[in-house]
Amino acid sequence: MSLSAQQIEEFGEFALRISDAARVETLGRFRNGVAVSGKPVTSSNSEFDPVTEADREAERVIRERIGRTYPNHGVIGEEFGETKGNGPWCWVLDPVDGTRGFVCGVASWTTLIALEHENIPVLGLIDQPYLDERWIGTKGQSKFRHGAVTVKCQTSGVTDISTARVATTDPRPESYFGEASAHAFARLANECRVVRFSMDAYAYGLLALGEIDIVAEAGLKHHDYAALAPIVEGAGGVITNWRGERLGSDDRGEALAAATPALHETALSILNQ
Amino acid sequence: MSLSAQQIEEFGEFALRISDAARVETLGRFRNGVAVSGKPVTSSNSEFDPVTEADREAERVIRERIGRTYPNHGVIGEEFGETKGNGPWCWVLDPVDGTRGFVCGVASWTTLIALEHENIPVLGLIDQPYLDERWIGTKGQSKFRHGAVTVKCQTSGVTDISTARVATTDPRPESYFGEASAHAFARLANECRVVRFSMDAYAYGLLALGEIDIVAEAGLKHHDYAALAPIVEGAGGVITNWRGERLGSDDRGEALAAATPALHETALSILNQ
Repeated sequence: MSLSAQQIEEFGEFALRISDAARVETLGRFRNGVAVSGKPVTSSNSEFDPVTEADREAERVIRERIGRTYPNHGVIGEEFGETKGNGPWCWVLDPVDGTRGFVCGVASWTTLIALEHENIPVLGLIDQPYLDERWIGTKGQSKFRHGAVTVKCQTSGVTDISTARVATTDPRPESYFGEASAHAFARLANECRVVRFSMDAYAYGLLALGEIDIVAEAGLKHHDYAALAPIVEGAGGVITNWRGERLGSDDRGEALAAATPALHETALSILNQ
Repeated sequence: MSLSAQQIEEFGEFALRISDAARVETLGRFRNGVAVSGKPVTSSNSEFDPVTEADREAERVIRERIGRTYPNHGVIGEEFGETKGNGPWCWVLDPVDGTRGFVCGVASWTTLIALEHENIPVLGLIDQPYLDERWIGTKGQSKFRHGAVTVKCQTSGVTDISTARVATTDPRPESYFGEASAHAFARLANECRVVRFSMDAYAYGLLALGEIDIVAEAGLKHHDYAALAPIVEGAGGVITNWRGERLGSDDRGEALAAATPALHETALSILNQ
């Protein structure tokens, strides 16, 4: 099965509808005393990782709609794991990325929806319901909608690291990075002009808007990063792991996104010094 | 001159009007390629500290209105320093708190307006124009408005540190804390359930809404903290420096806000271990 523009258009419209449906489940529970329960602690992420009712209910609604409309498509979701499909298409879902932000009342959490074709993401969507902000990347083009206004995304033209704005979710070694990666990130941050934390996937959306120039993270899972490449690349940015390979090529969940190829190359070399 | 409820009411209405006027100057420049210039690097804060056109123009507009309406009132502002008044009243302004967030396109920056009576803040206002969110604290009561909805603020009832959500702007020693304070904060963060960064004064607003339980910072200046106490205390929270004294009693700009007296006491003892 080959990819047609019409197919991608159809899947894009469907992605918008399922993220609308997810909003009903997430937004009503934001800043509303939602119950927080702990996930099992694993060796790779020993900090408390809250998972909310919003997370579960939103994924349930999205899966139900995919199953009804595209019964042959696979689904991989943060909350309910993998449902094998029958063909090349697979949806990858993170109903509430940034659950820590969610439970702290910060509107930096997002709903992430990706569509992969033979394991390559061809469509990515980032949705922030409280702000009514939504990014969608398809066919090499990314768009951002805020309220009634839609604009084409374009990364900043920044190539000089000393003027760059860099983001990561948590710089502490005990959270996502481990000691070596935390030191590598600190080296990178020291070369940049401004550093911001705690934004999760929302940071990649800001990169696509030209507001942030570099995002460097580790410890991302499939559902955390699948939606990112179509949006970042569709806005003119570059995104790879910390070895310059396609996202998901390593098992450390490393991501390095940059506004321009030159900035990406510089950041990559600093991380690997 | 003594404080009457009617006076505070009048000043509160005036604070709302000047923050509306400031919005015109800040919001139009947010995510809009605003020029960023560097402040002189000082020994206490060696990281790049951007100051924007928004910052200067918003303070100019607010000062102009104060001068016209209350010519006897003093004004202390981040951008244009101190204008001595003739009497007990002084406005303390930070037109764009969180300029790093501003230049990264993150809606965590705020406009801070405080009114002091004989050096004690009696009114505090936190405004986030992009989100249309505004906190005002007066007369021992804090209110939060989002769009058309206004609610009375109430901190969470959290007393157990192990369930607390804690925030600070930047945990790195080189940014605000210095080595000793960074270690003290790390001890505190390790006892809490969730940690968030990069929110500046917006974090105290979330504390007043019951969404965050502790905020601990250092390196705050007069214009950074003057608006905080009326809002935090008016919502039932406690805010002091790291020795349990009134904000501004030390020259290290330390602030520790907590949802309840018990939680504040626990956090204070961890910071001072």
